[in-house]
This record gives sequence, structure tokens and C-alpha cells, in this order.
Amino acid sequence: MSDHSLEAILSAWREGQLSTTAVESQLRQRYATTAEGQDVLLDLDRQRRCGFPEVVYGQGKSLEQLRTILEMQQQAGQPSLITRCDAAHAAVLAETFPAASYQPLARTFRVGQLTAAGLPHVLVVTAGATDRPIAEEACETAIWMGCKVETLSDVGVAGPWRLIERRERLQQADAVVCVAGMEGALPSIVAGWVSCPVIAVPTSVGYGSNLQGLAPLLSMLNSCAANVAVVNIDAGFKGGYMAGMIARQVARGREG
Amino acid sequence: MSDHSLEAILSAWREGQLSTTAVESQLRQRYATTAEGQDVLLDLDRQRRCGFPEVVYGQGKSLEQLRTILEMQQQAGQPSLITRCDAAHAAVLAETFPAASYQPLARTFRVGQLTAAGLPHVLVVTAGATDRPIAEEACETAIWMGCKVETLSDVGVAGPWRLIERRERLQQADAVVCVAGMEGALPSIVAGWVSCPVIAVPTSVGYGSNLQGLAPLLSMLNSCAANVAVVNIDAGFKGGYMAGMIARQVARGREG
Amino acid sequence: MSDHSLEAILSAWREGQLSTTAVESQLRQRYATTAEGQDVLLDLDRQRRCGFPEVVYGQGKSLEQLRTILEMQQQAGQPSLITRCDAAHAAVLAETFPAASYQPLARTFRVGQLTAAGLPHVLVVTAGATDRPIAEEACETAIWMGCKVETLSDVGVAGPWRLIERRERLQQADAVVCVAGMEGALPSIVAGWVSCPVIAVPTSVGYGSNLQGLAPLLSMLNSCAANVAVVNIDAGFKGGYMAGMIARQVARGREG
Amino acid sequence: MSDHSLEAILSAWREGQLSTTAVESQLRQRYATTAEGQDVLLDLDRQRRCGFPEVVYGQGKSLEQLRTILEMQQQAGQPSLITRCDAAHAAVLAETFPAASYQPLARTFRVGQLTAAGLPHVLVVTAGATDRPIAEEACETAIWMGCKVETLSDVGVAGPWRLIERRERLQQADAVVCVAGMEGALPSIVAGWVSCPVIAVPTSVGYGSNLQGLAPLLSMLNSCAANVAVVNIDAGFKGGYMAGMIARQVARGREG
Amino acid sequence: MSDHSLEAILSAWREGQLSTTAVESQLRQRYATTAEGQDVLLDLDRQRRCGFPEVVYGQGKSLEQLRTILEMQQQAGQPSLITRCDAAHAAVLAETFPAASYQPLARTFRVGQLTAAGLPHVLVVTAGATDRPIAEEACETAIWMGCKVETLSDVGVAGPWRLIERRERLQQADAVVCVAGMEGALPSIVAGWVSCPVIAVPTSVGYGSNLQGLAPLLSMLNSCAANVAVVNIDAGFKGGYMAGMIARQVARGREG
Amino acid sequence: MSDHSLEAILSAWREGQLSTTAVESQLRQRYATTAEGQDVLLDLDRQRRCGFPEVVYGQGKSLEQLRTILEMQQQAGQPSLITRCDAAHAAVLAETFPAASYQPLARTFRVGQLTAAGLPHVLVVTAGATDRPIAEEACETAIWMGCKVETLSDVGVAGPWRLIERRERLQQADAVVCVAGMEGALPSIVAGWVSCPVIAVPTSVGYGSNLQGLAPLLSMLNSCAANVAVVNIDAGFKGGYMAGMIARQVARGREG
Amino acid sequence: MSDHSLEAILSAWREGQLSTTAVESQLRQRYATTAEGQDVLLDLDRQRRCGFPEVVYGQGKSLEQLRTILEMQQQAGQPSLITRCDAAHAAVLAETFPAASYQPLARTFRVGQLTAAGLPHVLVVTAGATDRPIAEEACETAIWMGCKVETLSDVGVAGPWRLIERRERLQQADAVVCVAGMEGALPSIVAGWVSCPVIAVPTSVGYGSNLQGLAPLLSMLNSCAANVAVVNIDAGFKGGYMAGMIARQVARGREG
Amino acid sequence: MSDHSLEAILSAWREGQLSTTAVESQLRQRYATTAEGQDVLLDLDRQRRCGFPEVVYGQGKSLEQLRTILEMQQQAGQPSLITRCDAAHAAVLAETFPAASYQPLARTFRVGQLTAAGLPHVLVVTAGATDRPIAEEACETAIWMGCKVETLSDVGVAGPWRLIERRERLQQADAVVCVAGMEGALPSIVAGWVSCPVIAVPTSVGYGSNLQGLAPLLSMLNSCAANVAVVNIDAGFKGGYMAGMIARQVARGREG
Repeated sequence: MSDHSLEAILSAWREGQLSTTAVESQLRQRYATTAEGQDVLLDLDRQRRCGFPEVVYGQGKSLEQLRTILEMQQQAGQPSLITRCDAAHAAVLAETFPAASYQPLARTFRVGQLTAAGLPHVLVVTAGATDRPIAEEACETAIWMGCKVETLSDVGVAGPWRLIERRERLQQADAVVCVAGMEGALPSIVAGWVSCPVIAVPTSVGYGSNLQGLAPLLSMLNSCAANVAVVNIDAGFKGGYMAGMIARQVARGREG
Repeated sequence: MSDHSLEAILSAWREGQLSTTAVESQLRQRYATTAEGQDVLLDLDRQRRCGFPEVVYGQGKSLEQLRTILEMQQQAGQPSLITRCDAAHAAVLAETFPAASYQPLARTFRVGQLTAAGLPHVLVVTAGATDRPIAEEACETAIWMGCKVETLSDVGVAGPWRLIERRERLQQADAVVCVAGMEGALPSIVAGWVSCPVIAVPTSVGYGSNLQGLAPLLSMLNSCAANVAVVNIDAGFKGGYMAGMIARQVARGREG
Repeated sequence: MSDHSLEAILSAWREGQLSTTAVESQLRQRYATTAEGQDVLLDLDRQRRCGFPEVVYGQGKSLEQLRTILEMQQQAGQPSLITRCDAAHAAVLAETFPAASYQPLARTFRVGQLTAAGLPHVLVVTAGATDRPIAEEACETAIWMGCKVETLSDVGVAGPWRLIERRERLQQADAVVCVAGMEGALPSIVAGWVSCPVIAVPTSVGYGSNLQGLAPLLSMLNSCAANVAVVNIDAGFKGGYMAGMIARQVARGREG
Repeated sequence: MSDHSLEAILSAWREGQLSTTAVESQLRQRYATTAEGQDVLLDLDRQRRCGFPEVVYGQGKSLEQLRTILEMQQQAGQPSLITRCDAAHAAVLAETFPAASYQPLARTFRVGQLTAAGLPHVLVVTAGATDRPIAEEACETAIWMGCKVETLSDVGVAGPWRLIERRERLQQADAVVCVAGMEGALPSIVAGWVSCPVIAVPTSVGYGSNLQGLAPLLSMLNSCAANVAVVNIDAGFKGGYMAGMIARQVARGREG
Repeated sequence: MSDHSLEAILSAWREGQLSTTAVESQLRQRYATTAEGQDVLLDLDRQRRCGFPEVVYGQGKSLEQLRTILEMQQQAGQPSLITRCDAAHAAVLAETFPAASYQPLARTFRVGQLTAAGLPHVLVVTAGATDRPIAEEACETAIWMGCKVETLSDVGVAGPWRLIERRERLQQADAVVCVAGMEGALPSIVAGWVSCPVIAVPTSVGYGSNLQGLAPLLSMLNSCAANVAVVNIDAGFKGGYMAGMIARQVARGREG
Repeated sequence: MSDHSLEAILSAWREGQLSTTAVESQLRQRYATTAEGQDVLLDLDRQRRCGFPEVVYGQGKSLEQLRTILEMQQQAGQPSLITRCDAAHAAVLAETFPAASYQPLARTFRVGQLTAAGLPHVLVVTAGATDRPIAEEACETAIWMGCKVETLSDVGVAGPWRLIERRERLQQADAVVCVAGMEGALPSIVAGWVSCPVIAVPTSVGYGSNLQGLAPLLSMLNSCAANVAVVNIDAGFKGGYMAGMIARQVARGREG
Repeated sequence: MSDHSLEAILSAWREGQLSTTAVESQLRQRYATTAEGQDVLLDLDRQRRCGFPEVVYGQGKSLEQLRTILEMQQQAGQPSLITRCDAAHAAVLAETFPAASYQPLARTFRVGQLTAAGLPHVLVVTAGATDRPIAEEACETAIWMGCKVETLSDVGVAGPWRLIERRERLQQADAVVCVAGMEGALPSIVAGWVSCPVIAVPTSVGYGSNLQGLAPLLSMLNSCAANVAVVNIDAGFKGGYMAGMIARQVARGREG
Repeated sequence: MSDHSLEAILSAWREGQLSTTAVESQLRQRYATTAEGQDVLLDLDRQRRCGFPEVVYGQGKSLEQLRTILEMQQQAGQPSLITRCDAAHAAVLAETFPAASYQPLARTFRVGQLTAAGLPHVLVVTAGATDRPIAEEACETAIWMGCKVETLSDVGVAGPWRLIERRERLQQADAVVCVAGMEGALPSIVAGWVSCPVIAVPTSVGYGSNLQGLAPLLSMLNSCAANVAVVNIDAGFKGGYMAGMIARQVARGREG
């Protein structure tokens, strides 16, 4: 049954295509998505539809809201990822979810992770040390998605041999995340060495003013390399997510 | 031999790992990339390194430059794609390259196309009729890359059933290109229905002012859907290229 | 007498159309609007002219100025609403006005409320939990205007069924306020389901950078849905006010 | 039956709640929305859902597409409005639709108009003579929606008595559209005299540079008057549509 | 002697047109402008050339630098004005200059003031209470220049009678400073009532976002009233200075 | 009688303070401002209130509208100035108004001019030859206001002696208009030599990109000289108007 | 005599330090800079002060103005360079100055050139063929300054070997001009290979939108390479001038 | 041997052109650049390639990373410069590197300095006292490069004689750094007096709003003086680096 609207479920039951138990299960799945009293409508159907559970944007959410969401996802057997989770919230949540892992630089809170076929391989490249928090968020996201994640740090364009001598590492990845501030030139260079997509993440890091990341954002959008697509400023999560999704698709075939 | 620098070639020859004929072939490959007198340095090595031949940006290039490039690529056995090629140039070039195909709306000039394993499947979705020239450029690019390309037109968000009733078509693609002007909301909606990457292409189309595409560009960068990455305004070529590259990678596994 | 200029009042008196008492009353009404020594010129005539008393922008006003304004409005029999009122001021004011209600998330201070005919019905829709403070300001404003206010929270576009299954609630409102940050796509979607005006309120909430609300602002202004008009970034008050005014006008006819 | 999804229709038929004829009628309504071969998916259901037929954005559409759309709407008994329709297209279309009316300044092509209860009354106010094309588009839109439309022209703020002496005309409208370029101050002034919503339309008209309408757009968004909401730059259509929708809702009650 | 270059002074002495004492006096005047060791080159010649002593921008200057400047100006018999002077610096400076006056809201530190012929009359008009710090800076500047300064507060455009009934006060001024945030419409309205120049000062005050004052700045630059010129955002000092300079010029003639 | 509202006129008549003839004259003055059928509401009262007749913005106005306005102003004994008047319109209007003068570079159409007491003196300074059209508009405006106008051309800051050796001419003006594109530095330099206000007019002239005048606009707003106020980009008219108004005020005293 | 003010010249004559002939020569030099009646104040002193004659910005200047300037410079023995000179003007001017050279792509008109010691060597690098007009303007300027100019074309960053294999050519220059549109990454890469200054020139060339050159401008300003300074968008002239000036200084020492 | 790639070194060894010791030395030089475990890839080859060691951007780097870098550079015999080094880090590092010098205003940490031939002479000019921290960073950088550095402070354009009387100091420099906020006009003025390059550094200092340095940045980019190139906002380091590099090149010739 390719459709999950309420009408579809009910008429399938009426036609005898679904048992009452199956209907109950499907309805619980749907209506369990609402945590009453917390202003939260969790989308537990996301994993079926889009391949991954809903990732939770932690900023602005109360501790109670976060706990409710984690509990609902755990009951549904879905691994959880909270981004922009501050350390205080993480410390309290860790008591309830002892198997969780908190990465303070990335500010990600992870409970479990997905499994993946064929060893999807994501490489996260950074231009400089100051880009690390954003890069870490990308790493944590791709790890949560079941990918093998490697990093290549401090290979900014001003020192040309640094990248060239490591180009084989670039060429082994299924997808590359490239995190850079300042002039944001790195994704163009990296993309010229690889045959896989490069997801560029501009950061708001810069000597003098980089206009809060607008300079590298524009630079990356105008990249002369065709295999570069861009996500939001400082959006390490999105960079990791896109690369993770692509790497998983590619690896699935490899598995055979 | 993973490296193609001049030194590597020469010392391999000195070590007896390359015959003189092989060296000659490699050197011709390299130095044939320079079309003397036309201010062009064609990158014939791109296909080996990045998977696809260099795509030619037609705007600002003379007829003579374009012809030289096409000839060099044809001699190297590489299919060609010129974007932003005006009709007058195309008409003349078509006399030299009778097998070429010119798409006037997209302004693309294509000579041959790549082959691909596993039937890579790209879907190009548009919000409205005015986005068509950009969408066509995406289509032509993905076709040139060997993909099967389908389109889904005029499914802007104001008529909600239009997209929902066609969601199965969305879910069959290996990668989606989503072209939209105005408020650029369509990629967020499309991404909520699929488990593959969505490449968003903002267009400079809008009632009143959309600031030459900045409004949908910002909208797409801020998409709440995680599986959306963005390319330049009106960059149908880049959207098609990214989606084509991803679809090919995914399909290759399927083949096996 | 449709005109209230000083000349009109005086010559009406001269013509015997107004008694001296009536003139005194009208003049007091006019000149009582000036609170000497507090740099405030309160517009007590606003309710007659525009349907609602002047709403007070709390930021940058001293406690003494706020108290003076509230007293003047109470004496004139007008309910009061202060926006952007900080908690410290509210605590002190509440001692003088024990019937007042302070909403700390919205930072609104309300003394009394208007009555309305025909049960005007306003619905406030939000994309995510982080938009709540702005949404609450909209709610409090519409409540002060005598409307019945309902909310629909966390129905962002990435989870499509969430909104579709609740579309009947949308269709019952006289006017909708739609509060959203990030890409600001929600008003376009909501507007496609309803036959009433949608007032869109962009918020400065976003992963990475939404340029302090400029991204959703531009998105909403470019909405392909025709029944969307936009107010300032984070201007929950204005969203609630516009929707409240419209809902009251519509409900008034229903009453009859 | 409040839902029109395909499933709902089919199961209603299965339950005997719909006759086969009724199903056929509903299905034709839905599937007649697709004009094969023209890249158009017309939303004939819009009138039921949103109160008005789909308005057609003429720019970028071919003559054939426009003709197809008009024919589909006429067959469905829906009046049509094309905006941004150039004169050449209009001249040809007028041969097929002799009852149509084309307004060259507004560039609107209208076939028929809606009926409305209670004489909805829209007032379109402009600051200067150069704003007229935008104002005319607003007028034509509201007329098509069945409203009585009046205009008040050239009452820019530099000549204060002009507006004050005409304030009674302002106060008689159910909704006001206020079109202004330059500093865009007029909506704030107009809104201080009326108790109905003011829809502000910024125009790209200005001595020196008004940044293609950004200056009045920002001005209107920051209006200190609470009853002002804003639409896109030069979006006369949207201004007229919002005002027409509000006026109709208000007038409907008056009728009763 | 209309020229004051070093060469002119010396050759005038050589020609006997200047006594040695006069030369000494002129040279001291010139070279006393340098406070060695404090990175300050004070322009004591400004009063002769431009009519007013140099006004000191306090921000970023050390206490020692400020004291040195004040002492040099006092010795030269010039009244002093420091803007953006923080309270801590002012408290210490007041010990050395007991006749000084510090205005904490405006953050201005004034020692003495200029005299003026003919009672120059400056009026400072504000839209709302939150604009007061900027308005005070304008007032203090004009007072320092020897003007009679009056204020007209809280006459924002949403309450139209407030300004109209006070228009005679507007018409009595020699120059008007108009301070406004939000949509910045007030200068256009004020300028329509007066026959003197209006200096508009945009402020970074606004509900929601006024883009740190860019919205009223653009609005004022686009004013349809011809007698409006604009100074920098929050530049109360410049508004007061321009108005004070104009008022003094006008009053000088009146005196005669 | 300081007030001119309709009520004031009527009750003055009733009290015997105005003869019927006087009332007729005043009413004609007021109601003659409306040119029926041309969408024009001319403000003939402007000269009394603001010192100068309404200046007509020619762009976007029809020939018929312009002629009507000119006739109304001539009948009222007011000199006329049309800005942005294209040559074709001017040629036709000149037949009806043979005494008019058209300046093709400035695109101004002038009929008559005001008289002024005390020889008001305006100096228009330009940085380069390309700024001339804007400067001419300033000149024509100040001439129309009865000022003596001089120009100082091509004194851009890169050739420092050019300005210094002409500084006496600067110091003789009652008000200076300074027109500059590129980096817009000239007003700061000029203002350092004079004791009168400098009205800065940024132009959209520049090598490479000056962002259509934004660069010099920002530069002028940030001028470190206090006697600089700014008008809109390319707004030669406003620069001339402000300077002319100031010069007239100053000269009036001189006369006495 | 280090100073050239009028006073200095006159008193030197009075002191017998200058003969009357010398004074006459100096005065002619100074006053010959004014071309009466053409609104031009040519700075013939520039060559002495800044090393090079004034370069003439051709846009907006009349043929008569350009001819006057060229004649004045030729009489003073100074070579001339006009930038942004359109072909029609050039054709006419070439009749008067038969030794001139016009470069139509660069739109430069050159009469003579400077001599230079030590063979100053400027290299102009471009990313793509579309940057050629800007690069040519840089070349022509540096040639006029007496430099040996070489070009390196089409070495954009997407084809990494192209630049690396030509790095010796980079390392031989005294100064490098780097012209690039799109993401503007090339100067950062080039600067990593050389020990001389790189002058970066952003161009308004780009697929989709590069915001008229703002994207590469911001990119170049944020370059992580320290030896990159930037000039205006499309300012080939400035790039060539800066590089030419540096190369001449360096070469001068080499000569010795 | 002009090339340093790994292949080149190895094959040179194979050909007997390099001794094993020499290879070891070259390899150590290359691979010693990696500090394992600190996410740092130091470019020790920079000095050979670009003339100067890598300068370290201190912000966002840990104490451990900074110490590692300094140690590696000291072992390689290279002087070090850390910019944006906070005082706490500096205090700890000074214990390990007692010969270091920390400048708290500039926040630079310097260990050693380069030697230079011919006394390269850099002049750093500032407009006002608030620009000092940026100017100091420029000074420290040029000192580290072995230049003689002088400063000229507080010569903003509003006091014209200040700069003119000091113009000989300007003319003695080999390169000028010009630091200015507000309207950024100073570089244009300075450049008109000198025959060497002027490196302009815009600062984010301004009364009211200078848009965080965008106003002077744009002003400097649009400078009408041809010998001005620009670096990033507040980038004192880059200004000093460019000027130091140029001055060294020029002085080297002088030496000979």
C-alpha cells in the first residue's frame, strides 16, 4: 500500500486488505506523533517517507519538549539526533538516555544511529582550524546516518601542495562535505579533483568581515566547478545530511 | 598509475613502466589541450579525474573558440555540451557537427552524450511555466550525462493536490532537480516526500520583484528540509549536473 | 458631526448645535490626551477614528510614562495593551492595575479587552516551536480585540500530512495569522487551503543564517498565493491586529 | 463531503454515498484541470477551496497556453483574469473571447467577473500620477471579484490638506489599497484615518533611486500604524485581491 | 590676508606686512594644534575657517586625550563639545572643568557655548519616546552653538491631529531637526507645513526589524518633500549642527 | 488669519471677518487646485505654506497633465518648474508657453522664476565632467528660486591644488551644492573650507561599479565633516532646492 | 624647491632664487591646466607628484573635451591614456593623433607611452575567456606605463594542473594582475605560488547571478592569502596601474 | 631544481642529482609541516615560495595549537607572527618564548623578525584616534617583515592643512598603508600626493552607522585615485603585509 492517508487505511480495512490489528498499529503510528501539551507535532512517518527520522533542532526548545521527542522516537525504534543542543540540556537528558553521546563542539546529542549497507564513506574537508565546530556537526550527522566519516583538516588554498598531496583521500569518498569561511574557495578546488558531489558549507569565520558568511556563501554559489551544491551558512548538519544521504545511496548498490 | 603529472610520466618511462608510445599518447593528451591563438586551455583530463568532460560556457566565447573546443573534444572521443549558446552560433556550428542537437529554449548545444549503467533516473520539477528555460537546461545536461530525464511541470504550492497526487512520480527518481522562482517554496515541499537528494535551482522569475532571484535563493538555503542543497540563480546546468552525477552513482550499483 | 477639529467644535457651539457642557466634554477629551512632563501625547481619539485604542510600544518607555498612559486610557474607559513590556515593569504596573494580565513569553501587558459581535475567530499557525514568542504576541493582541483565538503549532512544511489532516481547522477561521522563520514557506501552503486572508509574520529564527528574518520576509512577499499579505519581521502584534480587525468586521455581519 | 481526495471519492461511491454520475462529475472536474501538451496544470478546484478561480500570470506564457486556460475556465463556468498580459496576446485572445475586456495600462485581460453580496466597496488610493499602472491593476482585480471600486489619486503627503479634506471617502471603504513609491509614507497616514485594513503596495517609482521599490517596501513594513499589511513591489494584483477578498467577506454579512 | 599657509605668513613678514609679534601669534595658533604624545592633531583653526570649533568624537578616545583637547580649546578661548562621552569619563573630566555640563541621555559633555546674534531658533521634532537620546544630542549641539532650542515630542504620523494642531510651532522655527525611526515618514509630513529646511535624522529604533535604521534612512532620502536633507543614522549631533548653522545664518540677518 | 481650513473660512464669513468676495477668492484658490479628468490634484497653497510653488516631477506624466498644471500655476501667478521633462514634451509645451526655457542636459522646463531679496548666492561644485547633468538640474532649480548660481567644475580630490587654489570662491557662497560620484569624497573636503551648509548629491557615475550611487551615498552620509547633509542619488533638483532655500533665508537678512 | 604653491614660486622669485623665465615656465605649467570653456581642469602636475600623467576617464566626456585634453598633454610632453573610449570617438581622435593606438576590446586610446628602467615585468592572469576585455584594459595600462606585459589565460581553478604547470611564469613577474569573475577564487591560488603582490580585479561575469561582480569582489577581499589587494569591479585599468607602478619601482632598483 | 613535488625529489635522487642526505633534508622539510593530533598542517615551505613564513591567525586556535606552530617555525629557523592573539594566550606563550613581543592593542604576538636589504620604509596613516588598533596591527606586521615603520595619525580630511603640511613625510615612503573609517576618503587624498602604492584599510568605526565598515570599503574601492588598492575591513594585518612586501622589493634594488 503506497499511500498512508487516513482514508486509504480505513477503506483498506473495509475491503479486508488490513486486519483490525494492522489498522490499530498504523493509526497508533500516525497519532502517536502528537505530544499533547508540549506544542510538538513529531513526524514519526518521516523515516518511511524520506529514509531518516526527523532530526530535532534543539535551539528554542524546552528540556521537556526535547525529552518528549526523544522518548517518542525511542519507542518507535528510531535513532535520535538533536542539533544545537546546549550543554546544560544535554547533561540532564543524558541521565534519561545513558546510551546517548554528546559532542560539545558540535553541540549534537545523539541516541543510537542508523545502519547502512556497503560502508558509505563521507569525507569532511576544512580550510582552517576555526571551521571545526561546523565540521564536527557535519561529522556527527553523517555518523548518525551510519556512514564511515573521515576528516581532512587545514588544507586551505594558500598552501597548494597540502591538498594536492592528499588528493587520493579525496578520490576515495562517496561524497565530500567542504567547510570553509573567508573567501570560500576550497570547494571549487576540491571539486576539481573528484568525481563525486561536493556539498559546500560556508561559515561565518573571517579575518576582518566576511559579512557573517555571505562572502563564502556567494563564492560557493558561483563556483566554476559544476559538482558543487551549497547549504546554509554554518549549516554543518545539512552538509553532513546531504553527503550522508548520497553516500548511503551509492554504497547500497556496492553492497550488491 | 594514479598520478598524471609530467614528472610521473617521465620517470615511469625511465623505469620502463611506460612504453615510448604510451608516453607519446599521454603527452599528446595533455598538450593537445592547448589551442594556440584562441586563448583557450581546454581540460581534456577532466573526464578521467571528475567523470565528465569539461562543459563549455558559451557566453562571451567567439565562434572560432567554440569550434576549436568541439573539435578537440571530438578528437579525444569526448561528448560535448555548450551552455548559453546563442542561436546564431549554434546554426553555424551545426554545419560542422551535423549530429549535434540544439535546444533553443535552454540554449544548449550538445554533440553526443555519455553512456550510463543502470538507467539513472532524474526528475526535473518546476513551479510554473515561466521557469521552463532553466528547467530545460537542467534536462539537456542530465540527458547529455546519459540519464533518463522526466519532468513534472506547474506543480506550484498554491494548488496542493497537484503535487500530492503525483508524489509517486517523485518517489521513483534517483535525484530530483527542483526549479522555482517567486518564494521558492517548492523544494521544501518536494523534499518532504522523497528519500533522495533535491537540488534546488532558484530562478529570477517573479511578479513584482523577487530581487533577481535572491528571494527564492535565500528561501531555498533556509529550507527546513534537510535533503535540499542549492545552486546558483538560473543555474539549470548546475542543477542538472549535480542530479545527473548523483543518479549515475546510484544507478551504477543497481546495475551490478 | 463628522469632523472633530477645534474650529468645528467652536463654530457648532456658536451655532447652538452644541451645549457648553458638550463642548467642555469634547475639549477635555481632546486635551486630556497630553500628559504634561512625560513626553507623551496619547491619542485618545484613536478608538473613535480607527476602531481600537492606541496600543503602547513598551520598549524605551519609562515606568512613569507607562503608568500615565494606562491611567489615561482607563479614565477614558479604554482597554489597554502594552507590547514589548519587560517583566520588571509589568510587576510594578500590576500593583496599580490588579486586573491586568501579563504574558511573559509574548511580553504583553493587557488591561481589559474589547467586546465584539458575532464571535470573530482568529487562527494563529506556527511552523515550529521556536516561533512561539511571536505567535503568543499575535494571540494576546487578538484576544485583547475581543476575538476567539486558536493556535495550530508545529505544522512546518517538511511533514506534509500534519497540515493536510488539520485543514478543516484552517477553513473555520475568519482570518489566519501565519508565523514562520527559516524559508517562510508556510503561508503559501496555508493560503492554498483557505478562503480568508492570511497575514504572514516572518521571524528571525533560523539554522545557520536567515539574515535576521530577511529570508522569510522576502519569501512571504513573493508568495505565489494571492491571499497573503505581510507585516514586519517578528511583528506578532501587527499580525494579530490585522487578523483581529478583519475577523471583527466579518463577524459583525454574521451577528446581524 | 469535506474532502476531495481520490480515495475519498472512490470509497464514498463504494459505500453508496455517491452515484456513479456524481463520481463521474467529480472526476471530470479534477482531471479536466490538466491541459495535455501545454505544460499547464490548471487548478479548477481553487474556486471551491479559496473562493476565487485561479488568476493567470500572463508573463512567459504562450498564446496557446493562455487560450487553453481561458477555455477550460469558461467551460467550468469560472470568470478569468490574466495579469501581465501584453497587448499583442490580448488582441488575438479578444477574437476568441469577444466579451473580454483588456485594460492596457494595467495589462489585465478579464473575461467575466464574480458576483458579490452586499456591495463590497474597495478604495484604491495613490500618491502620484506615476503610480497609476499599478493602481489600475489593483482596480481591475477588485472589479473582477465583484467589488465596487473607487479611486483617490495624487494625495501624496507633501500637500497635507488634500487627504484631510477627503477623509470621509476613506472612511466609507470596506478595505483600502494604498499604492505609493518614493518614501512610501502614504499608507501610514491613510491608516490613521480609517477603521478598516489598509493593503500597502510599494512601487518602483522614484526620483533618484528608490532601489527599485525597496525603499517604500521597507517603509511600509515598518509603518507605525497597526492596520497596514504589505504585498510585493508593484504587485497591484495582490493589493486588489486582498482588499477584494476582505471587502467581500465584510459585505456578505451586511447583505444578510 | 585671506591665505594662512606658512609661506604666506613668512613672506608677509618679509614684506613688512606682519610684525614679528603677529607672526609669532599666528604660528602659535597653528602649531599649538599638535598635542605631542597623545596621537591627537587638534584643528584650532576650524573656528576661523568653518565658524565653529572642532567637535570631539568621544568614543575610542582615552581620558588623557580628551583632557588634552579640552585644555587646548579652553586656552584658545573656544567652547568645547564632546559627543559619545561615557559617564565615567565625564565624571572625571568634570573635576577639571567644573563649569561643564554633561547630559547623560545624549552622552554629550559641553564646556561653554557660542554666542549668536538674532536669537537663532531650532525646533527638534520626534516621532516617539524611544527617539529621545538622539533628539537630546541634537538639542545639546544646537544649544552649544548658541541657539534657542525647543522640542515637539511624540507627534508620529498615526495620530494626524497631533501635528496639525501644533503646526504654528513648526512655522516659527528657523530650521527643524526631525528625528524618527520605524518608517521615517515624519520628515515628509513636517516639511509640508514649513518654509525652512528640515534636517532628517533616522534612528535605529523599530518594532520588528528596521534594519538598524536603514528603513527610515531610505525613506527620508526618498522623501517627496523637497526641503528635506538627511544625515547619518542616529546622528543627532549632525542634525543639530546643520540646523544650528542654518538658524545662525538666518538670525544674523534678522539682528541687523 | 493663520488657518485656511474650510471651516475657518466659513465661520470667518459668518462672523463678518471676511467679505463674500474674499471668501469666493479663497475658495477659488483652494478648489482651483483640482484639474478634473487628469488625475491631478495640484497644491496651489504650497507657495504660501512652504515658500515655493509645487515643483512638477515630469516623468510618467502625460503632455495633457503637464499643460494643465502649467496653466493652473500661470493663472495663479506662480512660476513653474518641471523636472525630468523629456525633450519631446518640452518642444510641444514651448509652443503654449513661449517664455519658457528648457535645459536639455538637466531636462528641466522652467516658466518664469521667483524674485529674491539680498542676492542669494549658491555655488554648485562637481568632481568630474560626467556629473554635469545632475549639477545642471541643481543650477536650474536654484535659478528658478531667484538665486545667483555659480559653478566650480572638475575639482575632484585626486588633484589637491585645484580645490585649494579656488577656496575663496567656496567661501563666498551662502550655500554649496556638491555633486560627486565614485567615492563621493568631495563634500567632506569642501566642507572643511567653508562656514555654510554643504548639500551633498551622490551620483550613479563610476568606473567599475559604484552600485548605482550607493557607494558615494554611504560615503557622504558618513562624512566626518559636520556641515554636510545628503539628498537622494542623482537628485540634483533636491540639492539645488535645499541650497536655494537656505541661501534665500540668509540673503533676506542681508537685504534688510 | 619641494613646494609648488603660487606663494612659494612668487617669493622664490622675490628672493632671487628663480629667474623670471623660470617663473614664467612654472606658471605656464600650472595655468595651462585649465581648458577654458570645456569644464575641464587638467592636472598637468600629476606626473611630477605621482609619477604618471593623469589618465582620462572617457565615458561621459565630449569629443571636444577629449581632444583638448590630449592636446594639452602632448604639448606638455606627456603620453596620454583614455579609458572607456568608444570606437566612434577613437576614430575621430585618431585623425588628429595618427601615432595613437586604439584597442577596441579594452576600449583604450593610447598616445605614446612612458619609458622605464630595468624592464618592469607585469603578468596578467585570467580565469576564463569572458574576462578578456577587463584583462586587456589592464594590459594596455601597464604597457602605457612602460612595462613588459605577458598574459596567462583560461587557468581557472577547476582544472588544477593548468596553473601548476605554468607556475614558473607566475614566479618571474614583478607584479601580477589577476582578473576573475564567478567565485573569484583564482587570486588566492595564484598568490600561494608567488612572492610578489597580486592585484585582484573582480569582474561582473558569471553563470546565473554573481550580483554584478559583488560575489568575486567579496571573495577576493576575504582571500586567505596575505599578498592580495583588490580594486573595483571591472576595473582593469586600476589593476594594471597598481601592478605597473609596483613593477616600475622594483625594476628601477634592478637597473642600478 | 625549480620543482619540489615528491616525484621530482625522488627521481632526482634516482638520477643521482640529489644525495640521500639531501633527500632526507628535503623530505623532513616537507613532512615536518604536519603536527599530528592538533588539526594543523603548517606550510613551512611558504617562506621559500612566497618570501615570508606563514602568518598564524590566532582566533579560534587553542593554546596547544599555537605553541606547536611556534615551535615548528622556530625549529625551521623562521620568525613567527600570530594575529588576533588574545592576552591570556600571549601571557602563557611568552613563558615558552621569552624573546617574543606582544602588542596588546594590535593583539599581535611576534617571535623574531625578518631581515631586509636597503631599509624598506612603510608609512601608516590614520584618519582618527579610533582607528589605532587596526593601524597598530599593520605596523607590527611590517616591522616583523623587517621594515622601518612610521606613523602619521589623526590627519582626517576635515582639517585640510594637517595633511598638506606633512606631505613630505608621505613622499618619503616606499609604500603607504592608509587606515580610515567613516567615509573612508583619506586614501584618495593621500594617493594624490605620492608616487607609491597606497594600501587602503577600511575600519568598522563610525558615528551613527557605517554598516560595519561597508561604507569606507565601498568608498575606497571607488577611489578616483588610481594608485589605491583595498584589503578587507579591519584587516590591518593585510595592509601591513602588502605594504611591507612592496617596500622590501623596492628597497632591495636600492641596496645594490
